[in-house]
Amino acid sequence: MRTYRLAKPGSGDLVELETADRPAPGRTQLLVRTRAAALNRRDLFITSGRYPLPARPGVVPLSDGAGEVVAVGADVARFAVGDRVTASYWPRWISGPLRPEVVDQLGCTVDGWLAEYVLLEETAAVAVPEHLTWAEAAALPCAGLTAWNALTRPGTLVPGATVLTLGTGDVSLFAVQLAKQMGCRVIATTSSAAKAERLRALGADDVVDYLAHPEWSGEVRRLTGGAGADLVVETRGPATFGQSLRAAATYAQICLLWVVSEPPEVLTVTESDLRGSLATIRREFVGNRTELEALCRAVAVSELRPVVDRTFGFDDAVRAYGSYRDQDSFGKVVIEF
Amino acid sequence: MRTYRLAKPGSGDLVELETADRPAPGRTQLLVRTRAAALNRRDLFITSGRYPLPARPGVVPLSDGAGEVVAVGADVARFAVGDRVTASYWPRWISGPLRPEVVDQLGCTVDGWLAEYVLLEETAAVAVPEHLTWAEAAALPCAGLTAWNALTRPGTLVPGATVLTLGTGDVSLFAVQLAKQMGCRVIATTSSAAKAERLRALGADDVVDYLAHPEWSGEVRRLTGGAGADLVVETRGPATFGQSLRAAATYAQICLLWVVSEPPEVLTVTESDLRGSLATIRREFVGNRTELEALCRAVAVSELRPVVDRTFGFDDAVRAYGSYRDQDSFGKVVIEF
Amino acid sequence: MRTYRLAKPGSGDLVELETADRPAPGRTQLLVRTRAAALNRRDLFITSGRYPLPARPGVVPLSDGAGEVVAVGADVARFAVGDRVTASYWPRWISGPLRPEVVDQLGCTVDGWLAEYVLLEETAAVAVPEHLTWAEAAALPCAGLTAWNALTRPGTLVPGATVLTLGTGDVSLFAVQLAKQMGCRVIATTSSAAKAERLRALGADDVVDYLAHPEWSGEVRRLTGGAGADLVVETRGPATFGQSLRAAATYAQICLLWVVSEPPEVLTVTESDLRGSLATIRREFVGNRTELEALCRAVAVSELRPVVDRTFGFDDAVRAYGSYRDQDSFGKVVIEF
Amino acid sequence: MRTYRLAKPGSGDLVELETADRPAPGRTQLLVRTRAAALNRRDLFITSGRYPLPARPGVVPLSDGAGEVVAVGADVARFAVGDRVTASYWPRWISGPLRPEVVDQLGCTVDGWLAEYVLLEETAAVAVPEHLTWAEAAALPCAGLTAWNALTRPGTLVPGATVLTLGTGDVSLFAVQLAKQMGCRVIATTSSAAKAERLRALGADDVVDYLAHPEWSGEVRRLTGGAGADLVVETRGPATFGQSLRAAATYAQICLLWVVSEPPEVLTVTESDLRGSLATIRREFVGNRTELEALCRAVAVSELRPVVDRTFGFDDAVRAYGSYRDQDSFGKVVIEF
Repeated sequence: MRTYRLAKPGSGDLVELETADRPAPGRTQLLVRTRAAALNRRDLFITSGRYPLPARPGVVPLSDGAGEVVAVGADVARFAVGDRVTASYWPRWISGPLRPEVVDQLGCTVDGWLAEYVLLEETAAVAVPEHLTWAEAAALPCAGLTAWNALTRPGTLVPGATVLTLGTGDVSLFAVQLAKQMGCRVIATTSSAAKAERLRALGADDVVDYLAHPEWSGEVRRLTGGAGADLVVETRGPATFGQSLRAAATYAQICLLWVVSEPPEVLTVTESDLRGSLATIRREFVGNRTELEALCRAVAVSELRPVVDRTFGFDDAVRAYGSYRDQDSFGKVVIEF
Repeated sequence: MRTYRLAKPGSGDLVELETADRPAPGRTQLLVRTRAAALNRRDLFITSGRYPLPARPGVVPLSDGAGEVVAVGADVARFAVGDRVTASYWPRWISGPLRPEVVDQLGCTVDGWLAEYVLLEETAAVAVPEHLTWAEAAALPCAGLTAWNALTRPGTLVPGATVLTLGTGDVSLFAVQLAKQMGCRVIATTSSAAKAERLRALGADDVVDYLAHPEWSGEVRRLTGGAGADLVVETRGPATFGQSLRAAATYAQICLLWVVSEPPEVLTVTESDLRGSLATIRREFVGNRTELEALCRAVAVSELRPVVDRTFGFDDAVRAYGSYRDQDSFGKVVIEF
Repeated sequence: MRTYRLAKPGSGDLVELETADRPAPGRTQLLVRTRAAALNRRDLFITSGRYPLPARPGVVPLSDGAGEVVAVGADVARFAVGDRVTASYWPRWISGPLRPEVVDQLGCTVDGWLAEYVLLEETAAVAVPEHLTWAEAAALPCAGLTAWNALTRPGTLVPGATVLTLGTGDVSLFAVQLAKQMGCRVIATTSSAAKAERLRALGADDVVDYLAHPEWSGEVRRLTGGAGADLVVETRGPATFGQSLRAAATYAQICLLWVVSEPPEVLTVTESDLRGSLATIRREFVGNRTELEALCRAVAVSELRPVVDRTFGFDDAVRAYGSYRDQDSFGKVVIEF
Repeated sequence: MRTYRLAKPGSGDLVELETADRPAPGRTQLLVRTRAAALNRRDLFITSGRYPLPARPGVVPLSDGAGEVVAVGADVARFAVGDRVTASYWPRWISGPLRPEVVDQLGCTVDGWLAEYVLLEETAAVAVPEHLTWAEAAALPCAGLTAWNALTRPGTLVPGATVLTLGTGDVSLFAVQLAKQMGCRVIATTSSAAKAERLRALGADDVVDYLAHPEWSGEVRRLTGGAGADLVVETRGPATFGQSLRAAATYAQICLLWVVSEPPEVLTVTESDLRGSLATIRREFVGNRTELEALCRAVAVSELRPVVDRTFGFDDAVRAYGSYRDQDSFGKVVIEF
């Protein structure tokens, strides 16, 4: 089979194509024929060595993918040949809180999806909703689950609550779709009229132009009758945090998803930012398998379709990386097999 | 103005029409011109003396209504003349848990909505979503809020969770609509093919015929791949509880809304009912003003429309009581002014 | 090594002593030299065939035990030779909710502690608090964790809340001790003056004699100024449930731990039992490894000592079963190795 | 009666003594003879005009006090003459979240405790635990309730969890005492050996010298086996926040109580502060009456005694302000009447 691997440092490449033997599943493993894999910002951080968790040299990249089970080990009970599956970003994190003993990540410390065949522990695999294409299914594990946990942890938002999303990154788009599915009111920000239109089509009730309104928190307050947003999905970090805090309701939650900035930034909070605020700032780092199953169940019930911006073939994976890094996108960049 | 009052015991009537002076609002009160009022099962219990909380003799009946503010007291700050309002079932229960000091109920211990004008403390009033008719607005306080709290307390259901509703009572219909708005999967029961069709139109994904399937818990398990329902809105009580428990998922919640049975019944649970179950059984008794505001916000965002089955004029209020008691309905029975 | 096994049905014995080879740990396993094992009611149900989960024929009995790690597999990371460990009642249930894939139980479907050496997956093992004797350590997994989860799930009781415990079973004694450690007020019931004294010594603020007060819910209400208990640890079931409900505060939790009754009983609830009650009835079935770790941490911080009533030697295990079944106890019955 | 009032700006004084008529209670009010009142940092901010909520000119100062009910209005039901009471910092905030309509504060927008007689709405009053002296009772409303909410919201800490407190301010001392009462492990910081001794006497399990260890987060990690603290009661703000974040466990809560800094400061967070952290940062602003009642219940059950450092007579109130501002204290500074 053919597989990409993380290129050696200094080779000038991000990933390298190799051939390898098609693996055989262990007793508790699934052999999956990959059908699609999707890129995330973290995959660029991994190739550039800026990711908080050091990658294993030569690891097969990409945390996100989906495929068909083609062989199963003797003890496998939850899946059968022919099943359509994706997998948890953290393949050993099944349930409950993240603990040091389960910090492996697909496409980072253990092999990910950018190979024609993938071995998965059956405990890491999750069935894919039937209505999804392979590309859509591959879109869920990282950005989809991050948005899901932003909206449902530690408790699900009540219908009618106001959710504020920032820009059109992958997590923001999922947040718009999922929040709408939950009966929330969604306010999104963007500076592009064309993207504003697409955000509305995805479910945004209101879109604020942050260039026209540099103090866009005022717009959010105006749109909510002064109350502010109940949840801010803070996908950006230091550059927007002050406005996010001012846009947030007295008891809002701000889910701060900032992980890596290039170049490094510092988040600052002033006394006046906090004036009158009892907001909670919390964080998520993707999520566990049980949460991914819950997301899949919700996607299935509402027949939600993840947004796929553009696709590349397996042979064009290097080009896909470059395209994802250098060009704007509205939805996932996916490699189809 | 004209007003109905609870008839004297032994008079043979349920309610009596009288005339009274139009009241003037106190400093913190609103004078509201009633536009619609709705009947609930508890209003029949009150007239028949079976309601747990003893009614004040001669009280103006009905907990549910909506109208227009026509005068306000000097200290009123939250509302103005012209506002469209409804009110909390428990007019003194603003927030937090129900406490003995706030147990007054509209149409029971204090005057309710079946009068041309109603005095409300401004703290009891709640603004009505703009898209609702008067009849629809009057439908919310009792059955709507009960369904809302069944679905959102102590934490909101996650999208994709399965909600089971029983029959076509007012609370069940609201539960179907609200659960669907929250992205849940809804399974409803009924024995009527016509009602099954209407339940589907309201949002039920599946409808189980409980006459065709006396052991209908098996159908619910089948429809959920064996998992069972995550929430059962148990509006009936002893007659259905055993099946509800068997239809419930391992960690399900069963919101037991049974209050009054005529004739008295006993709820029984056997060891085998609980086999393998870690379900939680909880209760709600309508809810507080803050929760009613949250319901109204959700109704506004989703433009949900309460189901109104039939309406009567103010002069026909006695007939409305009889019709509500004696004839089947699918949606609220409302008196319009 | 020597080991007991569940006796063959019809042999007339409960357990049988055998000799077996001392096992060697697999790559992820610990070999533990057992130092103490404790009996629970479920162990009697298992020997009498009344336990909901069918036991594996010839299984090594007992879910509760503690011992010293004497060998570890090549991949073991969390423990080393010399560590003092106990293990989760459900050795495969690590965290989050109970799922079908992790329903194995020590001493039931997989081998338990009544053997000189025990093999444990390292993921099932939990370090024992230093201040505990082996007998005390062996007391924690079943009754201790059940009490812990009754008091801490789904949220920990607030200090000052009132906890009601029933009688002097193992779970009740742990509940008294743990609730007191949490700053709660504890009301216990018993009919024995001597036991009342011991309950007070363990931390009970008040003890109600249920023979002197057959309607003992009235006493609980009197002692709480009419408010009732915030949590009832309902260890008994149908015989006490009505009084428990009447003793419970408006928003109380009743943790119903009833599993098996000999002979079968039916739990009944009347309309008047529920009058004015918004109590939640919930259930626990021991708990997972993460919760057992949390219990151990709490026990360590407060230097709590489980109550051990009497101990037997390994050779007297059959006698220990009989003694546990036939004689009253106040604290655990433990087999020391 | 005699009463202090906030001095006119520019008068050079903080508070001024006046005489006034002894008030009579309205229908729902209590007349309370003040027995003790306590100072808080916010009272200095109010006199210096730096408090976020503008004070009413000439207001009677101090949010914290306790006294005896000497007269009650005709409709008062919850209290009687002779009762010992304190009151909620926010006298109109009874339950649930803080809303704009209930933002009055004692000693700021409405008259507080620094007068021989105080009028309270009965809904604002809370009964004082019997075992407390007047000075101890006066210590609870602001610092005590802030510490309580830091430890119990949104859910109570589990026994055995590690709580980190900073220094020896009033909130920190209450947090040490209450956390210990809850069965938690307490780590406190101070630079004084004498205070370290007193912190240990109050319940701190470990005390870290932050001068000897400028990177004191490392000490907290060492003391917790690398895990970090589960809750940081962050009473200081920008100067300590970076260390607090590094001392916090993966899923810790940091209760950030920073409100006013003199001179203004900016809180900064870097990418590396957040590395590996899923901590939640939340805030509390004292709390409501229902929470104050819960605190009083917990204090009563555990017979906890607030720490009173020094007391002054009513005539020496101005000196008390100066002493509180200029001299170090370990416990409350109280004015006794």
